[in-house]
Amino acid sequence: MSRTTSAKKSETSNEISVVVSEDRIPPRERIVSTASELFRERGIRGIGVDAIADAALTNKMTLYRHFGSKDELVCETLRRASEKAGAIWHDLEVAYPGNPRAQLYAWVETRAQCLNGEPAGCDLANAAIELKGEGHPAHEMIERHKAEQRDRLAALCSAAGAREAELLADTLTLLLEGARVTRQAMGTANCCGHFAKACNAAIASFA
Amino acid sequence: MSRTTSAKKSETSNEISVVVSEDRIPPRERIVSTASELFRERGIRGIGVDAIADAALTNKMTLYRHFGSKDELVCETLRRASEKAGAIWHDLEVAYPGNPRAQLYAWVETRAQCLNGEPAGCDLANAAIELKGEGHPAHEMIERHKAEQRDRLAALCSAAGAREAELLADTLTLLLEGARVTRQAMGTANCCGHFAKACNAAIASFA
Repeated sequence: MSRTTSAKKSETSNEISVVVSEDRIPPRERIVSTASELFRERGIRGIGVDAIADAALTNKMTLYRHFGSKDELVCETLRRASEKAGAIWHDLEVAYPGNPRAQLYAWVETRAQCLNGEPAGCDLANAAIELKGEGHPAHEMIERHKAEQRDRLAALCSAAGAREAELLADTLTLLLEGARVTRQAMGTANCCGHFAKACNAAIASFA
Repeated sequence: MSRTTSAKKSETSNEISVVVSEDRIPPRERIVSTASELFRERGIRGIGVDAIADAALTNKMTLYRHFGSKDELVCETLRRASEKAGAIWHDLEVAYPGNPRAQLYAWVETRAQCLNGEPAGCDLANAAIELKGEGHPAHEMIERHKAEQRDRLAALCSAAGAREAELLADTLTLLLEGARVTRQAMGTANCCGHFAKACNAAIASFA
């Protein structure tokens, strides 16, 4: 990555239109991906905009040109995390078209894999805890995201023919959120190993 | 509460022996309880020692005389939260002596009540998320606490005659941790309303 990217201001907005060669990542992208990573590693309040700008090979002025405030940058990282997490429903449909029951079991399987691969848990749930008491603009987005994910899961449980789809969806949601936080609170010697088994037992009991 | 408490230094330790009349709370206690409350409301990183000392009607120097650092104060608030949470096992035994099955259902019931009464969730789990990436001394205590609580629950599940006590204990633990974080991430319109029902369904399916 190089600091020698050239930028020109767009005439119609405050956005910076960055002219970069194909092997370079525009500053805005560098800032968002670096911030996402650093927020995940050190906590949202554990890292400042100076350090983010520095790690993204840019400067604070550029960061503030793209994002009016740290809060705005936080919201953008969470919006992307939400978008990425939301893609699961399409992936499940593609993998098991027209087979909601298989999709439900695949949901468990892929969530279990994520638990292993992403020890820092859910960026959005973590942010809700980290930003508490602040009246932070991210809270509304987090609530909306969590409600949407839960509703999509309830629709899938219903399509899979579960007896009490709402209760099953809530059970699976609580198990997932619990596993994500437990992974962080208990380290590796935790109860996440039982996450998939607990989910599958719940699905079986509501069959 | 008054600022006019008199204090004298103990000759055998760095502890301050505070001389207070019975209706006054010693500075150390005021600092711990105020810090617990403020950490819960604003997050551990959302409040500084100056503000804590001020809210506890004392000063930073006194705070540092009792606690060498903010980290140490954080650990003390979590040690107390752990002690308070750990008292549940004794309470359950007193309420339903020699009846582990009733104790298990009472565990669900009291946890559900706590979810309603304590919207900020578990101080220890929250701290694990808030202090990530810091190598904070609290992490070891949090891990130990969570492992102990989980093991106590597994022993209760086993005593209650559950088929797969370890799996049931992990299921209930994940449901509880999930409900605590979901309460914070989804506000009131969340899936915690189903916490007790989900737990009881799990217990029934492992009976």
